[in-house]
Amino acid sequence: MVTPIPRGLMDGLTDIVGDRLSTTPPDRTAYARDLWPRSQLDRLAGDPPERPLAVVWPTSVEEVAALVTLCARERVPIVPFGAGSGVCGGARAVPGGLVIDLKRLKRIRRIDRAAMVVEVEAGFMGERFERTLERHGLTLGHFPSSILCSTVGGWVAARSAGQCSSRYGKIEDMVVDLEVVTGDGRIRRTSQAGGGLDWNQLFIGSEGTLGLITAVTLRVHRQPEARAFRGWRMPTMAAGLDVMRQTMQAGLRPAVMRMYDPVDTLLVGSKDDGKSGGGQLGKLKAILAGTGQLDDLKQAATRRALAAPRLLNFAIRQLPETSLLVTVSEGSPGEARQTDEAIAEYALAAGALDLGERPGRAWMAHRYDVSYKQSKLYRSGCFVDTFEVATTWAGIEPLYDAVRRAVAAEVLVMAHFSHVYPGGCSIYFTFAGTARDPGRMRQRYLRTWREALDATVARGGAIAHHHGAGLSRRSHMVATHGEARRYFAALKAACDPAGILNPGKLFAEEAL
Amino acid sequence: MVTPIPRGLMDGLTDIVGDRLSTTPPDRTAYARDLWPRSQLDRLAGDPPERPLAVVWPTSVEEVAALVTLCARERVPIVPFGAGSGVCGGARAVPGGLVIDLKRLKRIRRIDRAAMVVEVEAGFMGERFERTLERHGLTLGHFPSSILCSTVGGWVAARSAGQCSSRYGKIEDMVVDLEVVTGDGRIRRTSQAGGGLDWNQLFIGSEGTLGLITAVTLRVHRQPEARAFRGWRMPTMAAGLDVMRQTMQAGLRPAVMRMYDPVDTLLVGSKDDGKSGGGQLGKLKAILAGTGQLDDLKQAATRRALAAPRLLNFAIRQLPETSLLVTVSEGSPGEARQTDEAIAEYALAAGALDLGERPGRAWMAHRYDVSYKQSKLYRSGCFVDTFEVATTWAGIEPLYDAVRRAVAAEVLVMAHFSHVYPGGCSIYFTFAGTARDPGRMRQRYLRTWREALDATVARGGAIAHHHGAGLSRRSHMVATHGEARRYFAALKAACDPAGILNPGKLFAEEAL
Repeated sequence: MVTPIPRGLMDGLTDIVGDRLSTTPPDRTAYARDLWPRSQLDRLAGDPPERPLAVVWPTSVEEVAALVTLCARERVPIVPFGAGSGVCGGARAVPGGLVIDLKRLKRIRRIDRAAMVVEVEAGFMGERFERTLERHGLTLGHFPSSILCSTVGGWVAARSAGQCSSRYGKIEDMVVDLEVVTGDGRIRRTSQAGGGLDWNQLFIGSEGTLGLITAVTLRVHRQPEARAFRGWRMPTMAAGLDVMRQTMQAGLRPAVMRMYDPVDTLLVGSKDDGKSGGGQLGKLKAILAGTGQLDDLKQAATRRALAAPRLLNFAIRQLPETSLLVTVSEGSPGEARQTDEAIAEYALAAGALDLGERPGRAWMAHRYDVSYKQSKLYRSGCFVDTFEVATTWAGIEPLYDAVRRAVAAEVLVMAHFSHVYPGGCSIYFTFAGTARDPGRMRQRYLRTWREALDATVARGGAIAHHHGAGLSRRSHMVATHGEARRYFAALKAACDPAGILNPGKLFAEEAL
Repeated sequence: MVTPIPRGLMDGLTDIVGDRLSTTPPDRTAYARDLWPRSQLDRLAGDPPERPLAVVWPTSVEEVAALVTLCARERVPIVPFGAGSGVCGGARAVPGGLVIDLKRLKRIRRIDRAAMVVEVEAGFMGERFERTLERHGLTLGHFPSSILCSTVGGWVAARSAGQCSSRYGKIEDMVVDLEVVTGDGRIRRTSQAGGGLDWNQLFIGSEGTLGLITAVTLRVHRQPEARAFRGWRMPTMAAGLDVMRQTMQAGLRPAVMRMYDPVDTLLVGSKDDGKSGGGQLGKLKAILAGTGQLDDLKQAATRRALAAPRLLNFAIRQLPETSLLVTVSEGSPGEARQTDEAIAEYALAAGALDLGERPGRAWMAHRYDVSYKQSKLYRSGCFVDTFEVATTWAGIEPLYDAVRRAVAAEVLVMAHFSHVYPGGCSIYFTFAGTARDPGRMRQRYLRTWREALDATVARGGAIAHHHGAGLSRRSHMVATHGEARRYFAALKAACDPAGILNPGKLFAEEAL
């Protein structure tokens, strides 16, 4: 059933964007959701996300401002849209709402080499942005695995962190100032102007609820002159975590340190060498490899195995504790070498086996693959999702165990440890499951998320590290942010008096 | 005239803090102001700051919460007070208000070496805090020149930056979470809990207007193993600025890089070697050295010279352009040496003369002296103040020139360049002036500030770098923060519904 768009709104939109507007069902379907797996499960269960009224493609901040002004007057909700690769539902359509796709705001306004800052419009695609900087000998140092399918504005809106955040920081550390269209249709510039609060921080991570980010000025760096790659076979996860901790607490700044838990190590290995072992482990490996190319036979096998997650998780616990640690050190040739050597010293002292450059180079070559893995497993009648949390070094293993225990009856779970800092790191869980039918799959999926979030909150972990909150964490936002919801409500009222900006995201409206 | 404290309020306060309360005139006078020079000039002009009703010394966050609850009910304004060394009037008393001195909240609650974080109460004195960390082999890396007379809470409230911010970041980069008592008397914990906004950033830099910071969890580092000191005589300021820019943009992380402009170089030199040159320069040197020990003769000479600021500033322009650049490199022995060597390469290429270790070591030995210079010049019937701004590398010399030109008719002005980052640095102006009588001195002082702020805003510079805003920048907060004042107003209403928290600081109440 197509909801007809009111005539007055249609005329108003056309006045602003001309024919850069669509109300066709395919466009409205395409823009009804981002890559939040829940939306996929909803669709499979015959309950697809409601579609927006229309999609518009403004090309300038002035057009965005005019659109917001119109929507505020007409009380039409707005969902800002970048590349749609968010995995938390932050860009899921709001019924009766307008999607503003910002991808045509794609100019680089300024490359200031003297100040080492670049001003770029929000819709600029991530990988193209980094490639453009590279041509100038520069880098942002921000490499989310979604870089091929995410925009600069999306990074800021969702408080993203890239694979090299240990060295370059998270996106919030990179922002110099922002251009934002607030809910009253005004174009604002925010900055840390000296004295008082840092207003940039009001919009970083706000996921379109307080304003539409239309341009970002970011700090950039010179391209590193050298890189050193390395892989280590750690005897235990604990040993690997300790090497990462020691490295960061020594004040070193590797670009990447990531360690795979035993299951994830198996998966990475299978991707890397293409070989499959025998027996129980071989079977598990085949299942896990099934997140890549799948034939019908493998699909059925995957589904059968995932139907018994307890058994599978039990099998996993029998795996040798061996964990793969991948490192990339960069900077001047001297710094890259010294960082690599310092890590080697810690790793060897912890009983690690040096695997040489290959695992590091292999990781680099596949660093953006993950974003495309999802759909294939869905074709097998299974679901898969990821859940990244963060905590202190002392809390990492307890949190890892707690989350795995919490979801063991529902899904197969594996994890890697990345985004390492002197104080702690993030845990990136991947879980996969199945059920008899799509409705039950969705129930299992939702139970898994609830259990995982409960376990994380109970352990004092941060319920997100770099994917944002969107709708996926909403149930636990009050538990984790507490009274800050009142500050959010106050800001929301100030920035978006008509309440039209991405309503219901981050916090449930009734929580405010 | 003593304002009697209302009986009900007095009883309420006594119920909470017992005899840790004073209404005596000396205490009320001592707590009427911080080290904002304007307050000193007001006093000299016979117009001293109004005193608070009373001063209280709570010892726990619960007592602070009870005090705030009482004051909210009784509509009594509160000024939170640390060590009182703020130079912007942020802790200047509010008429009819209560001063809450937080210095007895001085426990270190937790030193967590595994997570490399320390939780400390807000009233802990800065230098003692750093000394305590040192005993554990740790450092915060935060060394404001006020460290001997400032508290950890004050650093966070005023968004402070220390002398080594190039390496360790500013205080906002160090905060993990905060304990805050908001204006409704509730104890809140803020953090960046993962997903959504970073709530710490609401209180960092808020100078007591949104809440009283009672405890801070901070990231700490290991003590550096090695330090390399160096001084360079740069042929020109421009050459020195370029060496600083090149160093930071190469990704190096020196602990300190500071360059003195020709006048300030002269002053630093005179402190360092105790010798005085001859002729016009010798006279200038003696005047400048007058900010140190002064005999009557020198006092009179200083005052006479400062009475003709145009002439003095003209004389300064005749100084050779030579500028002293001081550097401290630290970290592992390898990193300290390499940073020092890389700087040497840039400096020698720029025609600098290597002055060896001595200037760096001398700076280190005197690094906290500056906080005590002020009063001596005041005894000569002169005033002195500092004004720190920041901008991009390309903007530094234009901003330096613009501010100097703007105030040349009023005061003698000198500056150093410090807090260097890849994108730019701060300029730390020191100005000194005099006038026939205290009333005219204050007028001249206020004109100087207005001219300096106007020039900074016109050039797009940040009107503060690490002193905060308090009252000293209030006239230009709207010009520089723009519509962000509306977000501030919204937060203020949410955090402080009774409007009792340090009213009038940061923004004028009528601006909100």
